[in-house]
Amino acid sequence: MPLSHPRRSALSEQVIAALRNQIASGEWPVGSRIPTEPELVEQLGVARNTVREAVRALAHNGLLDIRQGSGTYVVATSELAGVMHRRFADADPRHIAELRSTLESAAAKLAAERRTEKDLKQLDALLVRREEAWQSGDAESFVAVDATFHLAVVAASHNDVMTAMYADLGEVMREWLRADVGAELSPDTHMDHARLVDAIRTGDAEAAASEAASYPFLCRPGRPAFAPPAQD
Amino acid sequence: MPLSHPRRSALSEQVIAALRNQIASGEWPVGSRIPTEPELVEQLGVARNTVREAVRALAHNGLLDIRQGSGTYVVATSELAGVMHRRFADADPRHIAELRSTLESAAAKLAAERRTEKDLKQLDALLVRREEAWQSGDAESFVAVDATFHLAVVAASHNDVMTAMYADLGEVMREWLRADVGAELSPDTHMDHARLVDAIRTGDAEAAASEAASYPFLCRPGRPAFAPPAQD
Repeated sequence: MPLSHPRRSALSEQVIAALRNQIASGEWPVGSRIPTEPELVEQLGVARNTVREAVRALAHNGLLDIRQGSGTYVVATSELAGVMHRRFADADPRHIAELRSTLESAAAKLAAERRTEKDLKQLDALLVRREEAWQSGDAESFVAVDATFHLAVVAASHNDVMTAMYADLGEVMREWLRADVGAELSPDTHMDHARLVDAIRTGDAEAAASEAASYPFLCRPGRPAFAPPAQD
Repeated sequence: MPLSHPRRSALSEQVIAALRNQIASGEWPVGSRIPTEPELVEQLGVARNTVREAVRALAHNGLLDIRQGSGTYVVATSELAGVMHRRFADADPRHIAELRSTLESAAAKLAAERRTEKDLKQLDALLVRREEAWQSGDAESFVAVDATFHLAVVAASHNDVMTAMYADLGEVMREWLRADVGAELSPDTHMDHARLVDAIRTGDAEAAASEAASYPFLCRPGRPAFAPPAQD
């Protein structure tokens, strides 16, 4: 189900790209209902058939869910996030958290080796914004800027595949992450991320990796997520 | 587009599962042409429409590619492999190799902490089979048993999500991996994997991680895959 379909018109592809952009940018967040067909016809200035074809293509690709009588909803921001969501729907969430933590730690190590001055400026700015969000006491904005900070660390690895995988795994875990952080901000949630940025700045790869690995997800530092399986 | 479609019959679902099993088991490997519609009708003893619907469903899910006038081909063993293949088609293969190596190293570390007696028996048996394949000089069987060995190491992490991701990334990289190993077996290709199994057996997590990380993919040990990006 590749999106560039040989029998699809250039106009259809443009409309698909426009809708996809609304989703990827967060304009239409996961869980939200998108505008109705007539509304999209008016907004985009194209024929109803073209809109319908574009919506169906994105439903086929797992980004939208067309619910008869209720409307069309965003279910994933990318094919990869959508397919991981379905594939790992019954998986142990600790396994997903462990994979994501592995990626973040490996990416932090690479970031210490490859970060640019621009990366460092962005990380410094995000540390400030994160602290401001913490001081404001608004849990929602703290969670959002915290997620942006972690993604920026991973992106500083300059490994695009690892960054895409990390971002999309984050989407798979989003509801669970919100539940973990909770509506209240606790000192545990805050943590000192300046140490991680310092390790990346000074190029200390091992310190960056272990700092990133120390962040609590389901498993708190010093407490393994799993007991060894029973011997058989 | 989940496979359990509300408007699809139980029989359709069974036929989809049967075809999916042929693909997942390697009976129909990636790149092969599957039997024609009349052949499948005869083999499965179901109506032509049911076969057609099942083939289309698997094409929509990215496992099959229906090529007009040529036949239907297997393009991926799972949705996840198919979507990663498309998503990372233009990615730097070193980024994929680096992600996969990261997963293997992290999984080897976890395997040292969680492996069962059964895991160790399987790894020992695969080491023997790997050595036999090496002695036989048959590159194809060596590559196959080597891949099975590495997957068994990752599976001994008892993290199902990490294992699925590693296996499917392997499929994404398969052609490239074959090219890297080449038709000829060189001493570099052989390597001593007994050290990794020993580290897993004795529970030496750090040794297992660094042993697994030392295996060459695109980058040879001691030589980083990337130069640091230019400062801007």
